[in-house]
Amino acid sequence: MNKIVILLLALFCVSIQAQNDEATLKSIYKKSLTNGQSYVWLDYLSNEIGGRLSGSENAEKAVRYVKSELEKLDLDKVWLQEVMVPKWVRGEKEVGYFVSDGNKFDVNICALGGSTATSNEGLQAKIVEVKSFEELEALGEEKVKGKIVFFNGAMQADLINTFEAYGGCSKQRYAGAYEASKLGAVGVIVRSLNLRQDDLPHTGSMSYQDLPEDKRIPSAAISTNDANKLSEVITNGENPEFYFKQNCKQYEDVLSYNVIGEITGNEFPDEYMIVGGHLDSWDLGDGSHDDGAGVVQSMEVLRLLKESGIKPKRSIRVVLFMNEENGLRGGLKYAEVAKEKGENHIFALESDSGGFTPRGFSFDCSDGNLEQIEQWRSLFKPYLIHFFEKGYSGADIGPLKNDNIVLAGLRPDSQRYFDHHHASNDTFDAVNKRELELGAATMTSLVYLFDKYGVNQIKNNAQIKD
Amino acid sequence: MNKIVILLLALFCVSIQAQNDEATLKSIYKKSLTNGQSYVWLDYLSNEIGGRLSGSENAEKAVRYVKSELEKLDLDKVWLQEVMVPKWVRGEKEVGYFVSDGNKFDVNICALGGSTATSNEGLQAKIVEVKSFEELEALGEEKVKGKIVFFNGAMQADLINTFEAYGGCSKQRYAGAYEASKLGAVGVIVRSLNLRQDDLPHTGSMSYQDLPEDKRIPSAAISTNDANKLSEVITNGENPEFYFKQNCKQYEDVLSYNVIGEITGNEFPDEYMIVGGHLDSWDLGDGSHDDGAGVVQSMEVLRLLKESGIKPKRSIRVVLFMNEENGLRGGLKYAEVAKEKGENHIFALESDSGGFTPRGFSFDCSDGNLEQIEQWRSLFKPYLIHFFEKGYSGADIGPLKNDNIVLAGLRPDSQRYFDHHHASNDTFDAVNKRELELGAATMTSLVYLFDKYGVNQIKNNAQIKD
Repeated sequence: MNKIVILLLALFCVSIQAQNDEATLKSIYKKSLTNGQSYVWLDYLSNEIGGRLSGSENAEKAVRYVKSELEKLDLDKVWLQEVMVPKWVRGEKEVGYFVSDGNKFDVNICALGGSTATSNEGLQAKIVEVKSFEELEALGEEKVKGKIVFFNGAMQADLINTFEAYGGCSKQRYAGAYEASKLGAVGVIVRSLNLRQDDLPHTGSMSYQDLPEDKRIPSAAISTNDANKLSEVITNGENPEFYFKQNCKQYEDVLSYNVIGEITGNEFPDEYMIVGGHLDSWDLGDGSHDDGAGVVQSMEVLRLLKESGIKPKRSIRVVLFMNEENGLRGGLKYAEVAKEKGENHIFALESDSGGFTPRGFSFDCSDGNLEQIEQWRSLFKPYLIHFFEKGYSGADIGPLKNDNIVLAGLRPDSQRYFDHHHASNDTFDAVNKRELELGAATMTSLVYLFDKYGVNQIKNNAQIKD
Repeated sequence: MNKIVILLLALFCVSIQAQNDEATLKSIYKKSLTNGQSYVWLDYLSNEIGGRLSGSENAEKAVRYVKSELEKLDLDKVWLQEVMVPKWVRGEKEVGYFVSDGNKFDVNICALGGSTATSNEGLQAKIVEVKSFEELEALGEEKVKGKIVFFNGAMQADLINTFEAYGGCSKQRYAGAYEASKLGAVGVIVRSLNLRQDDLPHTGSMSYQDLPEDKRIPSAAISTNDANKLSEVITNGENPEFYFKQNCKQYEDVLSYNVIGEITGNEFPDEYMIVGGHLDSWDLGDGSHDDGAGVVQSMEVLRLLKESGIKPKRSIRVVLFMNEENGLRGGLKYAEVAKEKGENHIFALESDSGGFTPRGFSFDCSDGNLEQIEQWRSLFKPYLIHFFEKGYSGADIGPLKNDNIVLAGLRPDSQRYFDHHHASNDTFDAVNKRELELGAATMTSLVYLFDKYGVNQIKNNAQIKD
C-alpha cells in the first residue's frame, strides 16, 4: 500500500474508534439515567442506616451492606480490608447560650469531631471574637487567657468555587482550639463553615496536635445566624459570657474496614485503576452528599461497566474507604497495602464533593496527561461536562500519589454543597436522583476511556480528538 | 508612526480593553454575590405575595411591588404598560380517585389552566390509557367515546436537557383535551410533566382551540406516582372507573400590566436592549423558580449596572411581562407597542428557566452574531459559564424576533427544574441564594458586553478574544 492509503486507513480506524466511544458514553449515560442503581443504594444507606461515623454500629452496618451489594454484581473479587479507626462519640445533644445585659440567648451549637467534653456542669466564661489567627495572635495571652475564643471568620462569598471559600477558613475549625489553648483560652466556638445564613451548626474534624491532655479545651461550632447574633452583641461592646456543655468522648481505636470490589483486567491485570468514595460520614445528618453519593456512584461505575458488557483491559476496583472524616485511616491503609504488594496503580478517581450535577474533573497529574485528557473533551460535551483542570483530587486517594499515577476528583456543581456539609440537613431528600446518576455516568465514562487507552499510552491515540 | 507601531498600539488598546472587561465582570459577580438584592426581592414576591396567576389580586400586588422597587433604583423611567389578560380561577381543591375491583384509590390531581369544570357532582367514567396521540388515533372513536382519556406519556429520562424532555410530551397537556374530545371523550387526565416520582400534580396551560363550548371537556393533571399506580391497574386488565371533580372557571379578560424600567442610553438612546422575565405564575406554589427568579434577576441587572457606575451607551430596559403562563399577552403587547413606536430593539434576554446555577445562554440569532459572542467565552470562564449555543430564547421576547435582533435565554442547570415546575413545591426554599445571584451576574455581564460592543459592530472588536 502506498502512504496515502495507509494514512486514510489509519484515519478511518481512528474515526470508527471515536464513534465507538461516542456510542459507549451514550449507552452508559442512558443506563444510569433510566435503569440506575445508585439512588436505590443511597436510599438504603441514608434512610435505613443513616449517619456512619467511624467506629459506630452504623458504620459497621454500612460495611456489611455495601459488601453484600457488591457481591450481587458478579465482580471477580469482593473483600474487606482491615483498618483500625478512631472512635469518637458525640453523646448528649449540646447546649449553648450567651448572657448579655442580663438576658440569655440560646444558640445552636455542636461539638467538633475530636473535641473533649466540658465538665458535667458545662463551661461558662467571657468570650472574645477573632476572625483570623492573626487577630488571635494580636490579642495575645493577656486578652485570651481564661476566656472562650470565638472564631468568626466567614467563608468568602464572592469565590465561585465554594471549596476554595471552605479552604480559606477551615483552619480555624481544625486548629482553632490548638492555637487558642496555647494562649490560655478555656474553650473555642467556631463559626460554621456554611455560606448560607441559617440555624444549623456544622461539625467537622479538629485536632489538638501535640497538646498535652490538660491543655485540650472543648471546641464547638455555632450556626451562622447565631454567630452573627453573638458578633453583633460583642461589637456593641456588651462583653457577653458564653456557656456551653457537651459530653463527647474519644475512645480507643476499633477495628473497621475498607470495602473493595474488583473486575480483574483481561489484558493488563497488574495495572490497577480505582474509583471510590468514603463510607464513613458525620453523625448529624445521614451523610447523603458527604459521602453516600460518592460511595454509590463508585459502586455504580463497576455495575455500569458490567451492564454495558465492557470487559476492562486493566483491573478496576471500587474502594469504599473508612474514616475519611476524622483520621483518613482507610485511605492510608489502602495505599500502604498497595505499596507492600507492589501493585501498580495507574489511575484513581474519587467522588467526595456531593451528589450535585457533575461539571467535570480536576486532575492531579502531569501536564502531559492533562493534554491527553483534553482530547476526550468533545466526547463529554453532550453531557455538559466541561471542566477539566489541574487541581485537588480527593483525600482518600491522596496517599497513592506518585509521579506516574493520574489522580482525579469528580467536580459537581459546588454552590449548594456547604449548605449541607457536616450538618443535620445532609440528608437523602437533598440529593436529586438525576444529578446523582449523571455523576455516576460521568465517572464511568472517564474510567472507560482510561481503561481503553491507558495512562501512558494515550499519546498514541492523539487523533481520537474529532 | 510606522505600521508596526500602529499595530502594537492597537494590540495594546485591545489588551487593555480585555482587562477592563475582566475587571468589570469580576466586580459585577462580586456585587451580586456579596451585596445583591435579587434574593431579598424574591423573598417578598414569594413569601409576602405568593402565586401570581394573571388576573388575580396577587398579580396586581406584584405589579405594584416591582414598580415601587424599580422606582427606588434611580432609573430614567419606570412605567406600566396596559395589557388585557385572561382570568382563569381554579376554585376549590380538586378531588380525584379511581375505583377498581370495588376498591377506591385516591389520587392527587389538579385542573389544567384553562380547563372547564366538571359538573358539581363530578365526572365518573371508564378510563383508557394512551402514551401518544398516535395511540389515541389508533384507539379511534369506538374505544374512546364516553370515556376519560389518560395521557400517560412520560418525559424521556435519558435526555440531558430536561427542557427537551418537556418539549417531547407537553403537547399531551396542551392539546390532549382537544384531540380526545374530537373522538368523543368526556374528560382527560394527563401525567404530570415531572421527571421525578412523587405525589405532586403539575398544572400548566391547555387549549380547546376551535372546539365549540359543548365539546370542551374537563382536563386535569395527575401526579407521577398516581399515574403509575393507575397505569398498573389498567395494564392488569382491571378496567377501572375514574372520578374527578373540579370547579375552575374562565372569566372575562381583565386589565393588567407589564412593568418596565429604563436606563436611557447616552450614545445610542434609540437602540433598545431588554432583559426580562414574567411576573405572573401558576397558582399552586409561589412561583419562585417560574418565574420569580427571572423577574428579580432582570431587575438586578439594571441595579448592578447602576451600582457598578456603568453608563450604558444604549437604552436598557427591564421588562416584567404579564401572562406568560396562559396567554402570552404581555409579550405580544410589548412587541406590538415597540413596533408601533418604531423602536429599534437590537437585543433581548429572558430568564425563564429557573433560578438554578447558570451554565450559559442559548441564542436565537445569526451565525455571525454567535461567532461574535464566542469571543467573550474566555471572559465567562472564571464563572464556569460555558454554554453558548443556538437555540430557544424565551416565550415573552419571542414576538420581538426579526432578522437583526439577538434573542437570548439564560440557561441554568436544568436537572431539578421540572421537579418544581407548575407544582405546589415551586417555592422560595427551593431557590438557592448563590445560584440565583450567579444567574443575575451572568445576565448583567452579557448585557454589559452587548451594550459596550453593540450587536452589529462587534466584528470590529474581534481581537478581544485573549
